[in-house]
Amino acid sequence: MLNTQSNNITACLLICCPDRPGIVAGVSQFLYLLGANILDASQHSTDPREGLFFTRMEFQLALTDKVMLEESFQQQVAAPLQMEWKIDYSDRRKRMAIMVSAYDHCLMELLWRWKSGELPVDIPLVISNHPKLEKECTVLGIPFHYLPVAASSKELQERAAIRLLEEHAIDFTVLARYMQILSPQFVRLYPQRIINIHHSFLPAFAGARPYLNAYTRGVKLIGATAHYVTNELDEGPIIEQDVARVSHKHTVDDLVMLGRDIERQVLTRAVKAHIDNRVILHGNKTIVF
Amino acid sequence: MLNTQSNNITACLLICCPDRPGIVAGVSQFLYLLGANILDASQHSTDPREGLFFTRMEFQLALTDKVMLEESFQQQVAAPLQMEWKIDYSDRRKRMAIMVSAYDHCLMELLWRWKSGELPVDIPLVISNHPKLEKECTVLGIPFHYLPVAASSKELQERAAIRLLEEHAIDFTVLARYMQILSPQFVRLYPQRIINIHHSFLPAFAGARPYLNAYTRGVKLIGATAHYVTNELDEGPIIEQDVARVSHKHTVDDLVMLGRDIERQVLTRAVKAHIDNRVILHGNKTIVF
Amino acid sequence: MLNTQSNNITACLLICCPDRPGIVAGVSQFLYLLGANILDASQHSTDPREGLFFTRMEFQLALTDKVMLEESFQQQVAAPLQMEWKIDYSDRRKRMAIMVSAYDHCLMELLWRWKSGELPVDIPLVISNHPKLEKECTVLGIPFHYLPVAASSKELQERAAIRLLEEHAIDFTVLARYMQILSPQFVRLYPQRIINIHHSFLPAFAGARPYLNAYTRGVKLIGATAHYVTNELDEGPIIEQDVARVSHKHTVDDLVMLGRDIERQVLTRAVKAHIDNRVILHGNKTIVF
Amino acid sequence: MLNTQSNNITACLLICCPDRPGIVAGVSQFLYLLGANILDASQHSTDPREGLFFTRMEFQLALTDKVMLEESFQQQVAAPLQMEWKIDYSDRRKRMAIMVSAYDHCLMELLWRWKSGELPVDIPLVISNHPKLEKECTVLGIPFHYLPVAASSKELQERAAIRLLEEHAIDFTVLARYMQILSPQFVRLYPQRIINIHHSFLPAFAGARPYLNAYTRGVKLIGATAHYVTNELDEGPIIEQDVARVSHKHTVDDLVMLGRDIERQVLTRAVKAHIDNRVILHGNKTIVF
Repeated sequence: MLNTQSNNITACLLICCPDRPGIVAGVSQFLYLLGANILDASQHSTDPREGLFFTRMEFQLALTDKVMLEESFQQQVAAPLQMEWKIDYSDRRKRMAIMVSAYDHCLMELLWRWKSGELPVDIPLVISNHPKLEKECTVLGIPFHYLPVAASSKELQERAAIRLLEEHAIDFTVLARYMQILSPQFVRLYPQRIINIHHSFLPAFAGARPYLNAYTRGVKLIGATAHYVTNELDEGPIIEQDVARVSHKHTVDDLVMLGRDIERQVLTRAVKAHIDNRVILHGNKTIVF
Repeated sequence: MLNTQSNNITACLLICCPDRPGIVAGVSQFLYLLGANILDASQHSTDPREGLFFTRMEFQLALTDKVMLEESFQQQVAAPLQMEWKIDYSDRRKRMAIMVSAYDHCLMELLWRWKSGELPVDIPLVISNHPKLEKECTVLGIPFHYLPVAASSKELQERAAIRLLEEHAIDFTVLARYMQILSPQFVRLYPQRIINIHHSFLPAFAGARPYLNAYTRGVKLIGATAHYVTNELDEGPIIEQDVARVSHKHTVDDLVMLGRDIERQVLTRAVKAHIDNRVILHGNKTIVF
Repeated sequence: MLNTQSNNITACLLICCPDRPGIVAGVSQFLYLLGANILDASQHSTDPREGLFFTRMEFQLALTDKVMLEESFQQQVAAPLQMEWKIDYSDRRKRMAIMVSAYDHCLMELLWRWKSGELPVDIPLVISNHPKLEKECTVLGIPFHYLPVAASSKELQERAAIRLLEEHAIDFTVLARYMQILSPQFVRLYPQRIINIHHSFLPAFAGARPYLNAYTRGVKLIGATAHYVTNELDEGPIIEQDVARVSHKHTVDDLVMLGRDIERQVLTRAVKAHIDNRVILHGNKTIVF
Repeated sequence: MLNTQSNNITACLLICCPDRPGIVAGVSQFLYLLGANILDASQHSTDPREGLFFTRMEFQLALTDKVMLEESFQQQVAAPLQMEWKIDYSDRRKRMAIMVSAYDHCLMELLWRWKSGELPVDIPLVISNHPKLEKECTVLGIPFHYLPVAASSKELQERAAIRLLEEHAIDFTVLARYMQILSPQFVRLYPQRIINIHHSFLPAFAGARPYLNAYTRGVKLIGATAHYVTNELDEGPIIEQDVARVSHKHTVDDLVMLGRDIERQVLTRAVKAHIDNRVILHGNKTIVF
């Protein structure tokens, strides 16, 4: 609906609840009485045996008492319909950390898009286990934290990283080819809050050296997969995937080079969807509105 | 929402109205009081200067008095909100005619998908200006009408075609490479009810011989476009497009052959969207939900 | 080069040999002295550690004594350069058998393309373990052999199939969704002569029920793979693959339906490449020129 | 063939000549006697009425007297077969200039790929009519020349640009969204040596504001085209094109943003092909080996 007032904010409401008549009517009536304009709405019903309903509603409303809004919604709509829900407001940008190793392509892509305004987030810091990419960050005014990692120091290094993420009130972290497996302790702290890019079309070629394995198998397409990190390696919920055509002419090095382009595109699309609150978890799968 | 009763029907409601708060609330409240379950909903708002709101709602309800439903909706919801709307019910299959010339690929594709259950329509007839494809139709039990056309007889031929379309209460007609330009008189009778497949990526290579022109220009992709027929040749609202990669190796004949695959895919997707009431006109453009 | 004489034939020469200087010079000099015009040539060198050279040369020559041509080539060129090679002539069409179960889409696609002239082969027979698709074959004049299979009769059924393939001098067989695993005895008889279409992007989702497994994993692309059949299930050399985009909205049935389109395209492209002698085996991989 | 000696160089030979028997034999025999190893070879014959043969041969040879090599080739092979040809050696990197306006995405993409080693060229300078992107160049050590342009000063500005290109012995220039139309005098100096990226799928939406025109027409795919600049605006030989899917949801600003990704990919692929001597002109079309 119409966006006419300048002191308005935009809110995004994500809901999961048992499927039944009246959900859309209940939510939209609540928003109407609040004076909110629905800008965009998407919904998804799972199959009847499971019987779940998911929706994402983006709406505009005058600057308001958020606590009261949320309490009213909980009492009048969410509780009667047994909803799990969360709401996010446009007047607060998400805070994104990037963890990176020595490959620069995913980092550079994210930074370029951030700088060009495509990614409406704050980037309070980049953490790396290599010193190599410091200048690429600091030239843009982004603090770079070098936290080297060795077998003996891994636990300490992760603790230092966690401390930084907490100090900077990070909302989510992107592993932009970080090349380290995070410990279960780390992962557990950030459910659906760590996005990884894996350089294969999962579930094919999970684990190490996917381009070499793709070459050895002789596939005709290579791919990349962005997913939330869980404690099952490369098994987390998939957010986005894409592929590119290859042939017998391509060496492993060629696949690495071609793959960089897919990784950059796929990771960007996943990060954008996450920032825009378009991703809802459904078991180990995602709904991407 | 849940689909639990077997004597239910599904309805699809398409709405266009001035954008303002309360539209979703109004429609969904009406449907809720009717006992309808919303199965799927999509919406689109144009930019504020134009200020239009479009929505498609698919819902399930018990077998009902359709006239009363429509009158109530008009009075209680549509009139106050200045809506243009239409509704379509699943208990009546659309009736699709196909007009074809001597090329068989688009016809065969539609017939195969219809036979396999992918296209939930009735096909009461095929009309052709060549006798060649009669057997392909009659073997599937579909009446084939041979209406030859010559410069002198074009008006008569069109009148015969229109008579057939009317006699069989056809809802929409697909030009499956019909290779004849319909007269303004014909087109005017069927607004947004004739779908054509053009064998180029429009607006490039409108008019005759698009593959030859694509070859001559040396493009690296060829395409196909499905659109509603209007009286501006190849200028009607585009429903679907796609492309395929070509190179200097391909002759014009190769482009024709490769193009057939794109034409088949693009036309099928457009016809499916039309059947499912997913296409709304917006000026000379389409919204495809 | 120029194709001017009408009593010419086209030949296709495939070569694999140790890489060294003089191979192209040797072969092209031999063909020049023969009066042959090279129409197309492709080559591929593997990495230096392996040191293999592959080439495909298509050339036109006057009708000739093939035995003498091949003996001369072996003596003068192939033996000195330690070549493995084979040659195929355009004046003899390959003979293709199709084995199919109850799904019609891959069969129909191959038959339509064969009828339209896109597949320059003879199809002396279709073999099926279901009676369902008989009419689709016989209407085009292609003999249909119904060979039912049960656990107890599998060996006998395969022997009957082999007898048919031999009687009809079949060059290669396409499993157009045959849904049966061929025994090692069968496969061993036809190295690089059986093409299968698997309904996933291998190596992801090998084995049974790939669409269900793709749905369960929540991938964002589904695929299909055409490969030569070996005795490692779904592990044979990949000829062609492709994918299509899917989302959380798609049910397993939707994936099956969308997948049919990819299967048809991928199988067609693989069969065309095989017919045109564009596929050379290199270990368990393919070179597709 | 094998690459075993370290003091070898690679050469790339491009040939166009009347099609006739013996061309491949003649060239490959010449190279064999020279001790050269053919690494890659591609060829293309136009249709018999035109009767042209094109080939690209990449080969390795010991460091050698290039003048003697070229004179021998001209006398022994090229003259008798009426060849137009050129040769390029790997021991001299091409010198690429970039001209850019205020949009950074194409420039940044080229610079990142150059820095990562994907583009084996020297970049002696960037020329811009805006001062905005100076830092992006100088941080990488690339001189940035700000040459503002106004209607009255256009001729002078072009002369200054030409002087810079000549002083730096530039081999080819990339217009990375330069947003200025070069004068016929400028273009004439650099035939097949200026590459432009146009932000549409040409020939659709030639000229100004292609994204706005694509939006207005309601196309379902947007594209980008890289081509050599000629004095017919947006009519030069196309090197590479690609597209991305869009829908009614996308505003003009969205198309601009999505288009940037296609522009970056398409321009990169065209520049790579040019650097690798893979592009041959054939009238107003390209052969891209």
